[in-house]
Amino acid sequence: MKRGFGSDNHSGVHPEIMQALIAANAEHAPSYGTDDWSQKAEIKFREHFGAETQVFYVFNGTAANALALKTLAQTYESVLCTDISHINVDECAAPEFFFGGKLIPIKSKNGKLTPSDLEPHLIRGGDQHFSQPKVLSITQPTEIGTVYSYEELKALCDFAKLKNLFIHIDGTRISNAALRLELPFKQFTTDLGVDLVSFGGTKNGLLFGEALLFLKKDAAKNFKFIRKQAAQLPSKSRFLAASFERYLTHSLFKKIAQHECQMAELLYQGLKEIPQVQVTQARESNAVFAILPRPWIKVLRQEFFFYVWDEATFECRLMTSWDTQEQDIHEFIKKIRSLL
Amino acid sequence: MKRGFGSDNHSGVHPEIMQALIAANAEHAPSYGTDDWSQKAEIKFREHFGAETQVFYVFNGTAANALALKTLAQTYESVLCTDISHINVDECAAPEFFFGGKLIPIKSKNGKLTPSDLEPHLIRGGDQHFSQPKVLSITQPTEIGTVYSYEELKALCDFAKLKNLFIHIDGTRISNAALRLELPFKQFTTDLGVDLVSFGGTKNGLLFGEALLFLKKDAAKNFKFIRKQAAQLPSKSRFLAASFERYLTHSLFKKIAQHECQMAELLYQGLKEIPQVQVTQARESNAVFAILPRPWIKVLRQEFFFYVWDEATFECRLMTSWDTQEQDIHEFIKKIRSLL
Amino acid sequence: MKRGFGSDNHSGVHPEIMQALIAANAEHAPSYGTDDWSQKAEIKFREHFGAETQVFYVFNGTAANALALKTLAQTYESVLCTDISHINVDECAAPEFFFGGKLIPIKSKNGKLTPSDLEPHLIRGGDQHFSQPKVLSITQPTEIGTVYSYEELKALCDFAKLKNLFIHIDGTRISNAALRLELPFKQFTTDLGVDLVSFGGTKNGLLFGEALLFLKKDAAKNFKFIRKQAAQLPSKSRFLAASFERYLTHSLFKKIAQHECQMAELLYQGLKEIPQVQVTQARESNAVFAILPRPWIKVLRQEFFFYVWDEATFECRLMTSWDTQEQDIHEFIKKIRSLL
Amino acid sequence: MKRGFGSDNHSGVHPEIMQALIAANAEHAPSYGTDDWSQKAEIKFREHFGAETQVFYVFNGTAANALALKTLAQTYESVLCTDISHINVDECAAPEFFFGGKLIPIKSKNGKLTPSDLEPHLIRGGDQHFSQPKVLSITQPTEIGTVYSYEELKALCDFAKLKNLFIHIDGTRISNAALRLELPFKQFTTDLGVDLVSFGGTKNGLLFGEALLFLKKDAAKNFKFIRKQAAQLPSKSRFLAASFERYLTHSLFKKIAQHECQMAELLYQGLKEIPQVQVTQARESNAVFAILPRPWIKVLRQEFFFYVWDEATFECRLMTSWDTQEQDIHEFIKKIRSLL
Repeated sequence: MKRGFGSDNHSGVHPEIMQALIAANAEHAPSYGTDDWSQKAEIKFREHFGAETQVFYVFNGTAANALALKTLAQTYESVLCTDISHINVDECAAPEFFFGGKLIPIKSKNGKLTPSDLEPHLIRGGDQHFSQPKVLSITQPTEIGTVYSYEELKALCDFAKLKNLFIHIDGTRISNAALRLELPFKQFTTDLGVDLVSFGGTKNGLLFGEALLFLKKDAAKNFKFIRKQAAQLPSKSRFLAASFERYLTHSLFKKIAQHECQMAELLYQGLKEIPQVQVTQARESNAVFAILPRPWIKVLRQEFFFYVWDEATFECRLMTSWDTQEQDIHEFIKKIRSLL
Repeated sequence: MKRGFGSDNHSGVHPEIMQALIAANAEHAPSYGTDDWSQKAEIKFREHFGAETQVFYVFNGTAANALALKTLAQTYESVLCTDISHINVDECAAPEFFFGGKLIPIKSKNGKLTPSDLEPHLIRGGDQHFSQPKVLSITQPTEIGTVYSYEELKALCDFAKLKNLFIHIDGTRISNAALRLELPFKQFTTDLGVDLVSFGGTKNGLLFGEALLFLKKDAAKNFKFIRKQAAQLPSKSRFLAASFERYLTHSLFKKIAQHECQMAELLYQGLKEIPQVQVTQARESNAVFAILPRPWIKVLRQEFFFYVWDEATFECRLMTSWDTQEQDIHEFIKKIRSLL
Repeated sequence: MKRGFGSDNHSGVHPEIMQALIAANAEHAPSYGTDDWSQKAEIKFREHFGAETQVFYVFNGTAANALALKTLAQTYESVLCTDISHINVDECAAPEFFFGGKLIPIKSKNGKLTPSDLEPHLIRGGDQHFSQPKVLSITQPTEIGTVYSYEELKALCDFAKLKNLFIHIDGTRISNAALRLELPFKQFTTDLGVDLVSFGGTKNGLLFGEALLFLKKDAAKNFKFIRKQAAQLPSKSRFLAASFERYLTHSLFKKIAQHECQMAELLYQGLKEIPQVQVTQARESNAVFAILPRPWIKVLRQEFFFYVWDEATFECRLMTSWDTQEQDIHEFIKKIRSLL
Repeated sequence: MKRGFGSDNHSGVHPEIMQALIAANAEHAPSYGTDDWSQKAEIKFREHFGAETQVFYVFNGTAANALALKTLAQTYESVLCTDISHINVDECAAPEFFFGGKLIPIKSKNGKLTPSDLEPHLIRGGDQHFSQPKVLSITQPTEIGTVYSYEELKALCDFAKLKNLFIHIDGTRISNAALRLELPFKQFTTDLGVDLVSFGGTKNGLLFGEALLFLKKDAAKNFKFIRKQAAQLPSKSRFLAASFERYLTHSLFKKIAQHECQMAELLYQGLKEIPQVQVTQARESNAVFAILPRPWIKVLRQEFFFYVWDEATFECRLMTSWDTQEQDIHEFIKKIRSLL
């Protein structure tokens, strides 16, 4: 396949993660999470997210999100999220299927929510005819590459707790948010009262898998049954655990994030210099959003794959990944310049 | 971990499969099943199961089974299976959760069902108060290691079709059945009118994953949505496809099955010679079931892990896998003899 | 209880319906829909909705709507509706619970949808990540008392069919729409290609119950199982059937609608004359919506119960019913005038 | 329809209940359970079941049972019941649909369960692969007309509580059990630690409806949402409440039960005297079970409707109801004698 900017899951497995898989492939190991690697990885996660953290691997991001919501909400409760959230528009109603209730999509600015966005939806408390709002689910970084600042997050989490909402973070690319915020994970999750984090693996260089993190004591009590019933219990769990253990060791997660974001910045700067291109979102993680002249798109996609994000405006999404190279950017910009 | 006979998912990844993973880890590949490896693997599956076969990877066996049933049955329909079937007792009600209906567990002999076992349950057709039987789900080889003969299968499938039941095979270890029957897969699945097969990977040397095979034309029309909504769509699909492609190439699946079954036979013969051990099931795949003297079990399990299958009778299950070695068997038998 | 304008389910059973219940209460009758009254009522429904009509009674409107959607949509499909639709905001996510998928709430004008409102949501056809729009559900009359004109309905239904959407009408008060349109039911439902109608009873003078009408041949094939599994199969079905049979005989439905709408018109005219009251919606069925001066509301509700529809604007909803009397209106208006 | 012994829901509404419906049909009443009748009925229920009792009306018995189970069990938990229980074989998998988990049908003697019947199923506690038993659901009187004695019930409830099982009673005809036991309701429900009772109405002379009784403080906290989402919230609730209020006043429930059981006893004695008829179950409530000579059945059913309970043995079920008359029994027996 031609290289491109389609998604950070178009790239393969990071070499260090592949090494971890190979190293874990020796002898027998108990299945279903009782292996040594799982213990080691849990220690790593606790270093980063706090001592109460409990870790459950699942196979992909949709599972992590949908099971987080099933854990936090009853079927007669609802989940507040943005209208462009992955859970709302890119998971084929998996959240509704697993938890049995309702998402409330809220029009968002910059992919982010504020307390005043939530306020109008916190109505009819106790009214049996109305599905009761119970969970706030946000994406960090957002689906359009923006990152909630620490202050924005704090205000939102404080408000959510005041309103007795549980807080879930879809952290498919949360390492990129940590890089942007220059904060340890714990400070912008656990310390703000976040309940659950979907901690992304697949889009950050792993072969597969996400970790669902329970940040509060005892919160995961029955989750093992929910996971198994949802067909998300990995049997050869050592390989997922070994992948995440390596990802969290010697700051590999940070190195990958830094590389991706540097590449995205290079792309961002390159595109900004071209007058016919309208960059539409701030570059805060590993995505660049830009409206390209319509006739260019087909030509460009013949050599570099990427997605048209909005069919109406021809806003395109360009994602970098752990294996994006400076040359990829240069060639892409060069190709664009050739179209001028 | 000590080696043992706990499960064929205690062993790691077969070296040839690991090579396939490493080979697939180059450059970018489209995600979600549109990669080259997926095409190659589908060709292999069609060689083995017939030209109409459509292949959908999912993450594990519980998913393959539960989504097969969701595909075949409405919420007001029911699934006939044995009382000891994996779907009935080892998947934490995942089938019920995904398809929303009812399993009808039927007392079985040897883990197998016959037409006359089904007959008493095919009642009250059209009666709105009664969940309508719609699917026959069998396991081949069964959970206790026995294998339906071709004649048994044919009789059962003919009966099921006569009664308008769909047929699903839980084929977690189906390669071992093919070996036992000395038949190509197609002959004892597609050709008998089977609708869906859960084709096992994880327990046969893969890192993870199962393939859900639709054997009849157009049957899979909407399955991609069912899979995605069930959080079972792998993004870096090339790795699953590459694993199965290798597994089905140069008869690797047969080599693995042969090895496992030879090792199981060695174990079986070794145990039969010990008067205090009562072998309880025929050895037809890679499992040996035997009642061991109760005081031995704890001692043996300190060195060789295995499961007690029936807490009441102390019947134990001993599984071999692709990496079981003759020496493992000899040492186990030697240890038992030392207890005499 | 004080009389008022709270809801058309605050009034009791219409005397003619009560007579029908008493008359049906003789001797034994088979249960579950095989009684004589059910046959007679079906004949009546077919007179009004066409010869293919199949009738299934359920206990309330939420059930009729939720089961209609379960019949028409798979779990991976979605339902287009207005943001203020009863199914979206007043059924505690029953639709999501029963059908397992997603509602797409669309910002509406006057409680109605147009083809151009739907258009932006008919995207990503065949994209497995996106829940596929499959059903259009509209309310006639709408939740705010407006009525789709024949032309509006025709345009919408034509568009829906062009886009392969099923069409469901929440007809809780559909007799009032028939009155407004001066058309037989069939002409603005069956003849426009509508698939299912929730035909309201409870809010039109019945003791309880709704009829779910399948307007197309064979469409109801498996619905009896869906209904039973949803706990909506009435056992003493003769009483529901007898109620609807009477409701549809000698134009009782029309008489009730005429009375309710005349009373609403009287109220509407009375309120329009009061400068401090801002009537907010056209009066097209048996509801009047008006913004009342905030201090009046509490005083008025002490004598006449009604609901505040919008807590932000103090828009109130005033419903008339089969037993509303001219005197009720006069006294209400008189009371308001006393507050001037 | 010819009179017969088909079911106690073939008879109509008891005259006293019909009087209560008519009496309640005056003026306006708030909907959804806030009416005066609901308060009066709750007082009655508390007299009979204890001061903590909370009452929720639903439309039928299937709803009462299915929602009881949804309240008590998570999707990964299971419900122990008999193989012939109504929830297992006559509700089209409504329990599975509503609560999302698994029923464990247990072979029963006399329709009843004992602690030793439950014991073998209380295994694998904490094992994530195994749906965890959480609820015991029994039927009193049973589906075959037998009644648990106080001692049997006490032993079973004590055992269930010891094993941390919730206890649900399907009390479709529980007034008949009270009569048989000669005990107040409270003594054989609340006082034994029962959590929820489905208290039957429809089969005891009501037009429709069941009451789901929560016997323990605070247990019903969120049930109003569960009920509404399940489409089981009656809007004109005064009519259900008025029916149950009357049913529980001046021992009407007892009078109805006495009559039904006397009629059943008469039938029982009549049948026992006929050598060709084999009465199969003890007569403890309003049902008689008997194997009739096969050729008689068709002839008898032409004049008196009843159900063949077991198609294999031609065991028939004969139910009496509040309106069964001595003459009905005499004519039936006379007809049988004419066939000798």
